[in-house]
Amino acid sequence: MLKDPKLVQADDFFFDGLRVAGNTSNAVGSKVTPAAVLQIPGLNTLGISVARVDYAPWGINPPHYHPRATEILTKGDAFVSPVGLVHYQRNLGSTNAIAFAALSSQKPGVATIADAVFGSTPDIASDVLVKAFQLDGNVVKHMQSKFSRSILSITMSDSLRLQL
Amino acid sequence: MLKDPKLVQADDFFFDGLRVAGNTSNAVGSKVTPAAVLQIPGLNTLGISVARVDYAPWGINPPHYHPRATEILTKGDAFVSPVGLVHYQRNLGSTNAIAFAALSSQKPGVATIADAVFGSTPDIASDVLVKAFQLDGNVVKHMQSKFSRSILSITMSDSLRLQL
Amino acid sequence: MLKDPKLVQADDFFFDGLRVAGNTSNAVGSKVTPAAVLQIPGLNTLGISVARVDYAPWGINPPHYHPRATEILTKGDAFVSPVGLVHYQRNLGSTNAIAFAALSSQKPGVATIADAVFGSTPDIASDVLVKAFQLDGNVVKHMQSKFSRSILSITMSDSLRLQL
Amino acid sequence: MLKDPKLVQADDFFFDGLRVAGNTSNAVGSKVTPAAVLQIPGLNTLGISVARVDYAPWGINPPHYHPRATEILTKGDAFVSPVGLVHYQRNLGSTNAIAFAALSSQKPGVATIADAVFGSTPDIASDVLVKAFQLDGNVVKHMQSKFSRSILSITMSDSLRLQL
Amino acid sequence: MLKDPKLVQADDFFFDGLRVAGNTSNAVGSKVTPAAVLQIPGLNTLGISVARVDYAPWGINPPHYHPRATEILTKGDAFVSPVGLVHYQRNLGSTNAIAFAALSSQKPGVATIADAVFGSTPDIASDVLVKAFQLDGNVVKHMQSKFSRSILSITMSDSLRLQL
Amino acid sequence: MLKDPKLVQADDFFFDGLRVAGNTSNAVGSKVTPAAVLQIPGLNTLGISVARVDYAPWGINPPHYHPRATEILTKGDAFVSPVGLVHYQRNLGSTNAIAFAALSSQKPGVATIADAVFGSTPDIASDVLVKAFQLDGNVVKHMQSKFSRSILSITMSDSLRLQL
Repeated sequence: MLKDPKLVQADDFFFDGLRVAGNTSNAVGSKVTPAAVLQIPGLNTLGISVARVDYAPWGINPPHYHPRATEILTKGDAFVSPVGLVHYQRNLGSTNAIAFAALSSQKPGVATIADAVFGSTPDIASDVLVKAFQLDGNVVKHMQSKFSRSILSITMSDSLRLQL
Repeated sequence: MLKDPKLVQADDFFFDGLRVAGNTSNAVGSKVTPAAVLQIPGLNTLGISVARVDYAPWGINPPHYHPRATEILTKGDAFVSPVGLVHYQRNLGSTNAIAFAALSSQKPGVATIADAVFGSTPDIASDVLVKAFQLDGNVVKHMQSKFSRSILSITMSDSLRLQL
Repeated sequence: MLKDPKLVQADDFFFDGLRVAGNTSNAVGSKVTPAAVLQIPGLNTLGISVARVDYAPWGINPPHYHPRATEILTKGDAFVSPVGLVHYQRNLGSTNAIAFAALSSQKPGVATIADAVFGSTPDIASDVLVKAFQLDGNVVKHMQSKFSRSILSITMSDSLRLQL
Repeated sequence: MLKDPKLVQADDFFFDGLRVAGNTSNAVGSKVTPAAVLQIPGLNTLGISVARVDYAPWGINPPHYHPRATEILTKGDAFVSPVGLVHYQRNLGSTNAIAFAALSSQKPGVATIADAVFGSTPDIASDVLVKAFQLDGNVVKHMQSKFSRSILSITMSDSLRLQL
Repeated sequence: MLKDPKLVQADDFFFDGLRVAGNTSNAVGSKVTPAAVLQIPGLNTLGISVARVDYAPWGINPPHYHPRATEILTKGDAFVSPVGLVHYQRNLGSTNAIAFAALSSQKPGVATIADAVFGSTPDIASDVLVKAFQLDGNVVKHMQSKFSRSILSITMSDSLRLQL
Repeated sequence: MLKDPKLVQADDFFFDGLRVAGNTSNAVGSKVTPAAVLQIPGLNTLGISVARVDYAPWGINPPHYHPRATEILTKGDAFVSPVGLVHYQRNLGSTNAIAFAALSSQKPGVATIADAVFGSTPDIASDVLVKAFQLDGNVVKHMQSKFSRSILSITMSDSLRLQL
């Protein structure tokens, strides 16, 4: 639950968690560290948040979209990803990399395509995926076995939690 | 361009195009007929639109999401798909079927996952898709050859066109 | 009170109550069955709802407006009633009829003119109605005796309940 | 059409037209003088406007509602009429009276009930009014002959003009 | 905390506190009496409020801005101060004066410049003020000793309290 | 004028101007380089922008507020300045420093206090400033001579330009 506004103090408008590099030892070689309303209670009602993205060498932040926010990279070159648009980044170098992003929501949400489509709970029926992606049935079942996190239910409760 | 409000008349609040069944002779066996601000100029600023979906026997409306609208089916059982949530429908019967949907935007937009990921222009680099979907490179290239429509650029201009 | 978002489940995005015909045995020969946030808790914050309207032969849905929503009929011909505009429908046939409407609010509210003006509690002073409608005083008093439901207080609390 | 923002000057944020009493020589004994975006071009996008209401002795401002604004009286006692709620005022004294109202829209709109129901163009069918208001047919036709201004079409174009 | 909407009654849409003159015996010779959501619970969600300003002879309402509302004077001449714009008024006469203002928020907030800059808690460092205002250090310290109220923390909690 | 959406292209969502350090050779020792809708046409309607702030050794970004945006620093420690709140930064070190800020508006606006109060055009009467800031008249006149830029008129036109 979001913090009771009557108990908010100056510290609630500050967050030092972006100093720490995220752990990129995973299948895609990247890690997002959000600084949104759950990390910075003072953002409640203010319509903005930020995030740090760490990339291992050649790491990718896989194709995803934010259902409630436009994203803009804030350091060096500024790129804009309008709300709901699929986008991705990758580290083109052989050393670690960092990006800082700003998002136009206190709780932007994220739907990573592979998780949302092949890892949803309950499952999207495999024959629907076969037809939609024009894939072989065995390939679809193999993919469904790899993506287990249910983005479907998570996005629903995200949407409602904003109401608190 | 949206119609000049000074020229709007009573007819601009009416649309009879939903009487006609959509042509479902395509790979997925479904067809969406929108009745949004381009079809009903009077919807400008009003935050709502509707659509008719026709399904061939066993047809599917493949996994997609609407970047700017929550969808609700309006006849018989009411199902809600919150804004930005991936959803799909399929016809479980051996005859044609029809659904009527309402959407909370005058121009909801749609991102069909397969088109947005495997058919975007410019391409999402195939090695990114290999890593993101944990697919074989040949499978990815085969899929990219099948989906040609650029949802990436379309969604961008949709977002801006609302400003007119 | 609206449902606590922490307790929302998949069922809260579904409603089967529109399958049932409303009882049209009343003075105007129509019945509205809403599927809004009170019936579908998952609609909270999503800005849309639907309704089924049943009509007896020659029945009317009397002149009314929605203080917080634009309405659009979703099946067959699409008609738009902008937010706050007085509108009505009637069944031109000798058999029962059904309409499905979408509304651009999770809680559209309704002000039926006859109720709001002649049935409000407390009463609108009868001499005000005489002057405003250029009616005979006896006609006004007769009308006030027929419309008893207080739309005045209902609309007020509707407006506030959205804040929960 | 609303003024081109590039041409706005300091004078566009000022209006002296509320100094002048409105002419209350009419059937209801009141006159509203608006100071909204058409009178004060600088109000464009700012979501507020004001109005002066003059009352002849015993005059009334007949039952009406504002489709796009909450109203609050600003001098002496403050009364609130939430957006879309039917309300009226009358002068209880034997001398002229003045009220100043603030409205939460740059273009609040107004639907005077008698005009909207009995004076709309095209007509609401008289048998619909007979059933909705439980009135005799001759009374309805007499009332329709008295109210000629078409609030129906006016409200529609108001809604759209905001888009300019 | 804002009033529980389930407990709102007709009285919550009325306020008689604007009848009483504010006490202008202070350094600037003016007093603002607000009629906002804390005084009129029914304003919750309605986006408007009003205020009475009393002025002693030659009194001023010192330079300030409203972080969440456009202001418009509602009686006599109408002046508009767009949201966030610094503005002030003064009484040019030798007798008491009154103004009635409408504001486009249920809780407009106010930041009086002198308080916000020279009276904030914690202090803005005096050498920052020396550089920003190009003032002598002793003048800055003298000013900081005169303005004690912390607008900094007040505005923060105002912003959040709206969420209740 | 904002760019015609029909002419927007992929380049309009990209900006490389933040690579270049701003010139901090000025009275306060800082320079803000905005990347908002005028620099990135694709931000139109998207509700977010970014800025780079360069600081000379011991430089300050003097007390100011944004009338239309909350600001958050996006690199290292995250600080939030709610919309309309006066805030400042200063460089505590003897070398150049850089900050990247995100703002919750495509055109946040800025009101630097010293400019808005002592440099407005037309002038705020000096005796009003004497009373409001409890300053000597000669000090006020000296300050007014130093701040020449009219923030008053700029903020007004900013507000309206958003409407284009």
